Amino acid sequence: SRSINLAVIPGDGIGQEVVAQGLKVLGSVLPQDVKLETKEYDLGARRWHRTGETLPDTELAALRTHDAILLGAIGDPSVPSGVLERGLLLKLRFAFDHYVNLRPSKLFPNQATPLSGRPDIDFVVVREGTEGPYTGNGGSLRTGTPAEVATEVSLNTAYGVERVVRDAYERANSRPRKKLTLVHKNNVLVYAGHLWKRIFDRVGQEYPDVSTDYLHVDAATIFFVTQPERFDVIVTDNLFGDILTDLAAAVTGGIGLAASANINPDRAFPSMFEPVHGSAPDIAGQGKADPTATILSVALLLRHLRFDAEAARIEEAVAADLAERGSAPRTTDEIGDALVVRVAG
Amino acid sequence: SRSINLAVIPGDGIGQEVVAQGLKVLGSVLPQDVKLETKEYDLGARRWHRTGETLPDTELAALRTHDAILLGAIGDPSVPSGVLERGLLLKLRFAFDHYVNLRPSKLFPNQATPLSGRPDIDFVVVREGTEGPYTGNGGSLRTGTPAEVATEVSLNTAYGVERVVRDAYERANSRPRKKLTLVHKNNVLVYAGHLWKRIFDRVGQEYPDVSTDYLHVDAATIFFVTQPERFDVIVTDNLFGDILTDLAAAVTGGIGLAASANINPDRAFPSMFEPVHGSAPDIAGQGKADPTATILSVALLLRHLRFDAEAARIEEAVAADLAERGSAPRTTDEIGDALVVRVAG
Ligand SMILES: CC(C)[C@H](C(=O)O)[C@@H](O)C(=O)O
Ligand SMILES: CC(C)[C@H](C(=O)O)[C@@H](O)C(=O)O
Repeated sequence: SRSINLAVIPGDGIGQEVVAQGLKVLGSVLPQDVKLETKEYDLGARRWHRTGETLPDTELAALRTHDAILLGAIGDPSVPSGVLERGLLLKLRFAFDHYVNLRPSKLFPNQATPLSGRPDIDFVVVREGTEGPYTGNGGSLRTGTPAEVATEVSLNTAYGVERVVRDAYERANSRPRKKLTLVHKNNVLVYAGHLWKRIFDRVGQEYPDVSTDYLHVDAATIFFVTQPERFDVIVTDNLFGDILTDLAAAVTGGIGLAASANINPDRAFPSMFEPVHGSAPDIAGQGKADPTATILSVALLLRHLRFDAEAARIEEAVAADLAERGSAPRTTDEIGDALVVRVAG
Repeated sequence: SRSINLAVIPGDGIGQEVVAQGLKVLGSVLPQDVKLETKEYDLGARRWHRTGETLPDTELAALRTHDAILLGAIGDPSVPSGVLERGLLLKLRFAFDHYVNLRPSKLFPNQATPLSGRPDIDFVVVREGTEGPYTGNGGSLRTGTPAEVATEVSLNTAYGVERVVRDAYERANSRPRKKLTLVHKNNVLVYAGHLWKRIFDRVGQEYPDVSTDYLHVDAATIFFVTQPERFDVIVTDNLFGDILTDLAAAVTGGIGLAASANINPDRAFPSMFEPVHGSAPDIAGQGKADPTATILSVALLLRHLRFDAEAARIEEAVAADLAERGSAPRTTDEIGDALVVRVAG
């Protein structure tokens, strides 16, 4: 389709600033004949303080009508921990059945990494997005007393695991190295872990060209810092994926570059694109935030909407910008402007 | 007491080899008048293959009579994942109420780290050992069918959280920097997370000299590689502690040096000391395993049994050995011998 009807949720903290740059680059990279419509949704901490709402049903229904959603960041210290995360961010991921949470990690040339030796890092984590310990299935009894008991239930279904595992095999099969690693903790979490492993092994029979590997999550963190070049595609559950992708961002030069896509591959609902980083209230409004993660998330958005050439242009622009940038710190706006020039040029 | 009645569980893979070195060093460091008695327990993969047993009640009762337990490693590819981990290792931790799983991390001088810049790392993780997602509280329904559902329940109690949090404050209070960081994921796992946070804040009022901090587990992994020097004592749940301590071992030069203590601070049951690494079947029997983690675990054992001077001697010997060793690889036995000489000298 030659039009994009985009929902924009700037959200909290630096969300506003980085989303503005993402939209600027998106506007510049699209061909003239593509009609870009954007509608901004006022959701996040301010809305919650004003009305007590996190994501009203009417807004959810309106969001559903868009081709895709661009989200900045959610979360603010003035709101109790969990309220916006669960009531807004996770609610969107679950309501729109974003079962593939895609998080690429690449160490760009010239980019600083805390790892010595500069390994060649280029992998993607396929994080399950609609199950595991993220379902809100828990509770507490005798809350606040010495007899309190609190539970968190990780829910895992063959239905949910198979579809994301299948997606991960497809991605691995289409990459040059064709390698897929399952990460879980099946020596302790035997019920969920064995479900994942069984399905991983069975679906793998349909992908004879994909080589496979299994790692416990604790061991995986070791390889992330000692041998990250061993990974190509990783598939894992919602919580392990959350942990591993922050670590992946750190070793590839920081959370300022980590993009993510919350995808509904069935296209029954709009997919949602957001930087992995949070709202960083400590630097909000100061023009210090790096918008690159959001701009790379825009590239993932374009690829999902089948503007592959435009997605590639953004990714190349980011790589060139990182390779050529000087050592002087740049403002949020300056980075956005530099990338606008590159994608247009 | 001037005698130690030690239970030894060499276990699987390299367990045998590293435990032999641990015992050698223990024998050398103890004063002449201390009577060391050891009894070896044949538990692990071989036993399971022979008898189908992981940890019979009679063995458990016998183990209970010891002052402490030294364990090598548990786990073998010939045994289904989870059988020995849950039936033996975790069974011991739970049966003997090892609610403090203590895992120090220190970057020794001269020791290689995957991190550039060589940060000054010296922290200890107090991992809860008897609750969380490790209780085996889960199940699966319609197993093996497309309609399968599998659950894992994280169980958390005020009783269990408060005692380990209190232990962590005590440890932080007795260290020069007096800093304690709680790691959880209370923006998603709100029931367990808020229980931990509430107790952490309340108990903290009794330790006005300890400065505190809270990090989500995903953010914590970032700081482990970008700023590990910020940590002093970390307290966290069973699963997060499992993940973070492997990562900690990796950044401080590898799992070959990571010691651990499964402590019952009430001394109602014997505490258990083991290297963090696994059974490494790929290198078992080749004399390649580094016994240092086991030897440092022996130091933790000695400190628990109030042989503080002897514990310190082992730790100093390891530091000196690492600082002075050449680049030639040494066998398991050679490393053990070198440390025997140093602790005796
Ligand atoms: C903010 C939080 C709920 C979220 C998550 O845990 O998924 C974030 O950490 C992420 O990785 O997108
Ligand atoms: C072997 C396994 C059950 C164990 C754990 O998960 O606790 C190990 O990883 C550890 O850290 O001691």
